[in-house]
Amino acid sequence: MAQRLQDELSAFFFEYDTPRMVLVRNKKVGVVFRLIQFVVLVYVIGWVFVYEKGYQTSSGLISSVSVKLKGLAVTQLPGLGPQVWDVADYVFPAQGDSSFVIMTNFIATPRQVQGYCAEHPEGGICTNDTGCTPGKAERKAQGIRTGKCVAFNDTVHTCEIFGWCPVEVDDNVPRRNLVEEVDAAYMRTCLYHKALHPLCPVFKLGYVVQESGQNFSTLAEKGGVVGITIDWNCDLDWQVQHCKPIYEFHGLYEEKNLSPGFNFRFARHFVENGTNHRHLFKVFGIRFDILVDGKAGKFDIIPTMTTIGSGIGIFGVATVLCDLLLLHILPKRHYYKQKKFKYAEDMGPGAGEHDPAATSSTLGLQDNMKTS
Amino acid sequence: MAQRLQDELSAFFFEYDTPRMVLVRNKKVGVVFRLIQFVVLVYVIGWVFVYEKGYQTSSGLISSVSVKLKGLAVTQLPGLGPQVWDVADYVFPAQGDSSFVIMTNFIATPRQVQGYCAEHPEGGICTNDTGCTPGKAERKAQGIRTGKCVAFNDTVHTCEIFGWCPVEVDDNVPRRNLVEEVDAAYMRTCLYHKALHPLCPVFKLGYVVQESGQNFSTLAEKGGVVGITIDWNCDLDWQVQHCKPIYEFHGLYEEKNLSPGFNFRFARHFVENGTNHRHLFKVFGIRFDILVDGKAGKFDIIPTMTTIGSGIGIFGVATVLCDLLLLHILPKRHYYKQKKFKYAEDMGPGAGEHDPAATSSTLGLQDNMKTS
Amino acid sequence: MAQRLQDELSAFFFEYDTPRMVLVRNKKVGVVFRLIQFVVLVYVIGWVFVYEKGYQTSSGLISSVSVKLKGLAVTQLPGLGPQVWDVADYVFPAQGDSSFVIMTNFIATPRQVQGYCAEHPEGGICTNDTGCTPGKAERKAQGIRTGKCVAFNDTVHTCEIFGWCPVEVDDNVPRRNLVEEVDAAYMRTCLYHKALHPLCPVFKLGYVVQESGQNFSTLAEKGGVVGITIDWNCDLDWQVQHCKPIYEFHGLYEEKNLSPGFNFRFARHFVENGTNHRHLFKVFGIRFDILVDGKAGKFDIIPTMTTIGSGIGIFGVATVLCDLLLLHILPKRHYYKQKKFKYAEDMGPGAGEHDPAATSSTLGLQDNMKTS
Repeated sequence: MAQRLQDELSAFFFEYDTPRMVLVRNKKVGVVFRLIQFVVLVYVIGWVFVYEKGYQTSSGLISSVSVKLKGLAVTQLPGLGPQVWDVADYVFPAQGDSSFVIMTNFIATPRQVQGYCAEHPEGGICTNDTGCTPGKAERKAQGIRTGKCVAFNDTVHTCEIFGWCPVEVDDNVPRRNLVEEVDAAYMRTCLYHKALHPLCPVFKLGYVVQESGQNFSTLAEKGGVVGITIDWNCDLDWQVQHCKPIYEFHGLYEEKNLSPGFNFRFARHFVENGTNHRHLFKVFGIRFDILVDGKAGKFDIIPTMTTIGSGIGIFGVATVLCDLLLLHILPKRHYYKQKKFKYAEDMGPGAGEHDPAATSSTLGLQDNMKTS
Repeated sequence: MAQRLQDELSAFFFEYDTPRMVLVRNKKVGVVFRLIQFVVLVYVIGWVFVYEKGYQTSSGLISSVSVKLKGLAVTQLPGLGPQVWDVADYVFPAQGDSSFVIMTNFIATPRQVQGYCAEHPEGGICTNDTGCTPGKAERKAQGIRTGKCVAFNDTVHTCEIFGWCPVEVDDNVPRRNLVEEVDAAYMRTCLYHKALHPLCPVFKLGYVVQESGQNFSTLAEKGGVVGITIDWNCDLDWQVQHCKPIYEFHGLYEEKNLSPGFNFRFARHFVENGTNHRHLFKVFGIRFDILVDGKAGKFDIIPTMTTIGSGIGIFGVATVLCDLLLLHILPKRHYYKQKKFKYAEDMGPGAGEHDPAATSSTLGLQDNMKTS
Repeated sequence: MAQRLQDELSAFFFEYDTPRMVLVRNKKVGVVFRLIQFVVLVYVIGWVFVYEKGYQTSSGLISSVSVKLKGLAVTQLPGLGPQVWDVADYVFPAQGDSSFVIMTNFIATPRQVQGYCAEHPEGGICTNDTGCTPGKAERKAQGIRTGKCVAFNDTVHTCEIFGWCPVEVDDNVPRRNLVEEVDAAYMRTCLYHKALHPLCPVFKLGYVVQESGQNFSTLAEKGGVVGITIDWNCDLDWQVQHCKPIYEFHGLYEEKNLSPGFNFRFARHFVENGTNHRHLFKVFGIRFDILVDGKAGKFDIIPTMTTIGSGIGIFGVATVLCDLLLLHILPKRHYYKQKKFKYAEDMGPGAGEHDPAATSSTLGLQDNMKTS
């Protein structure tokens, strides 16, 4: 018994079994075989490894963006006279987040106070008080209805509301000229240009908008969203200096979406003679979303082996295809079949003791006899 | 020599070697073999390819979110009288970021000025000046202690502080009714509903909170965080129209975390008669974090080949298992062993010249003689 | 015909072909073979599966961060007298985003009004009006030039501008002592410490900055950016409790970058006697970017099978290498070649009928005769 086990073990460790091969001296098949192998090799080595870097794992990245804006803007407003706008005035939020808005246009409603006044006609026109249900508020309303119907101006009557008065009138969007100055020639040592300075992190507002494929004046008037993607694609098997960002600009402004353009309201609150006032601003602006993307690839054993392993698997295809050719298509397929296959009949017990060929009678087995 | 090389080359190119096979006519094994192959095939084709889209690479996405809020709120505050709140008042930040807060409740401390006043009892009660170390500040303190112990009200004495006075008293959180109005019926053409309008990007505040599985009134009173995940799962092998977002709402409010609820303080600064004042607001609000997730899959040759390659590898399992069955389990395993294996003895030099079988004596080799 | 098909089918289903093997009794090769197999096995099971968790798919995560700050600061400004700063004053934005700024230092320019005044010398010095082109604005300008050259102070003349007056003078950055108090001992039940409390989500400002490897006083004076990465690495095959965050702090402050430090301007607007004023603040602060990273791994059949499949492929390498050894390196390689290969000549039709060996004459075929 122990002897038996020992034999088994020595057999396991000191024996090596390799598949017996049939060597076919056939130009056609041989060439086909090598061709397929060659293609697979080129694919695995050339494509997967060298080109697609199949030996790397790539992981995403986390990022942090700081933004700083420079520039001035001047406006000549009928009511307010000349006015200068600097960074503290036209950037939201002030601290320069990765998503920020540059005010390019606005509708100001100065010195609002909580009180009673006529609603904006958008909120609904009325002829008499019955048309104004108290406490109700339309979608566009700027306040809660009191129930009275009062004169908005000489021509039209609207429901009286309680809210911030006077109400905002944003019927016709003006066209201020903030941004032209904003993106005036405030150059630094470098200024980003797609071709000339693809790595300079200083951007001219106008250029960015233009590159995003949008019309600047439309954007400046109605506002819009511009996506700035910074794409890092790093091969960490090389020095990190080699990994450089690629800047791209996308127009995220869609005519068809719910509310085209980009605008929001903000208020500057102040107190005068003990009563709270506010300046209300409906801000039209260009919102910039800086989206950092990209991945970093690094050599890793796992994908390498997986690729090699599956590559070897694909190698097997060559044999499968050639066998197909050899055993089913070539004129001398029968002959090759004999060569390739050795037959083992399933016969009664004891068959194992002597050569099955002797007792067999099929042609196949006779071939077999001859060849074996 | 050159002749030799030429032979080698022609051999390499014009010869094809295919493994010699033993064809076993055994129903059991045959069926098992085909079954295993079938399972593997179904797995590779059906599961990995068709179901799991094993032929695609999927990459993450970068996104940009714009938010716009509509609605009004009215409050009846004892001190301040009736007040209307519009978007410019109850949304932080104003520009509508992907993470924004809707004020649902607040504690106002109007007209604070830098000066000296009695600390809030939370900051520590005192009986005499000795209890108030000057310059010190407790965790809950609203100012720096001066060292005096003064009356906070008729009943309790607290340390005098230097800071924004009068101090904020947020002992009992009031329950304003801002949001009920905020999410009043401001419908558009469509309004999001999980089942009815799963693609409408207009959301009713109450519905979102409810879907997030949270109690609205709790949230509105103490504040909380709601995560809105927009899940894009795109198969770019089809038209991009087919890839639609899935909205999900998650309650990120946890009782057990450090400070339950969500609140923050902000101030409105103003100047009156040359002195700086501020209105301090402790804002309780619902913070909405819009988290865009998802991935886009696209056909790629690499995963395709890897899957195929490893699939072929798994195919090999069939042979391994069947050989196991054939050579170790079946009754006629000895017979099959003879058929499958050809033996090559390791003997002294010159052995290569004639048949090793002749000189061998093991049972194995006798079998071998018979079969060969 | 039907008979033929039936045979084909039964052959397909009830026959099993397994490669015929040559069993080589050679210690060297046998041991090498097992060794290679062992290495591959260890790699696939031990490394890929157990260590690298090759049976999991990992997906990224989406996250939401809430931040709350505590603490007070006192300043003694020459002009303004003592002043207390609380959260509502020194944090931007107020609502505590995942990216927020803590003001550590500032330059105040109180009570600015839109008007005419002398530009800051940085904006360009002049000797007479000719040096000041009207309407022009230098990069550093704080307003639009009127064309006059006026006295900035007793010593220097600068161009007159229209803008917010008086202009900001930020020549020498002061060194306030805001943060020392801010990060005073406002402990909670726990406080984060790399080693002692690695999971406590309460951070001491000074500790975070120090851990980020930056000099606190430099940062506090000129401002800077600190990245806080929260790394979740979850194995969802276990309870979710096991997946805990790892906090890391990175200094994102670079001397070499465009504008070292981190600062921004913001204004507090107010109205006095009907004219708009503002307090302008140039804020130097520490910006904290909380970057949540990490991935969650879960068992998945696809990677499991892929790994197994490719592992099997790699197994094949063992045979390839050993055959190399056997057929080209060992002294008795010729003998083994005979054993391994059976030759199939490519000869005229009818060749299939009788043994090719008989008509062949190469040594190889004679060996073949002997062995077969």
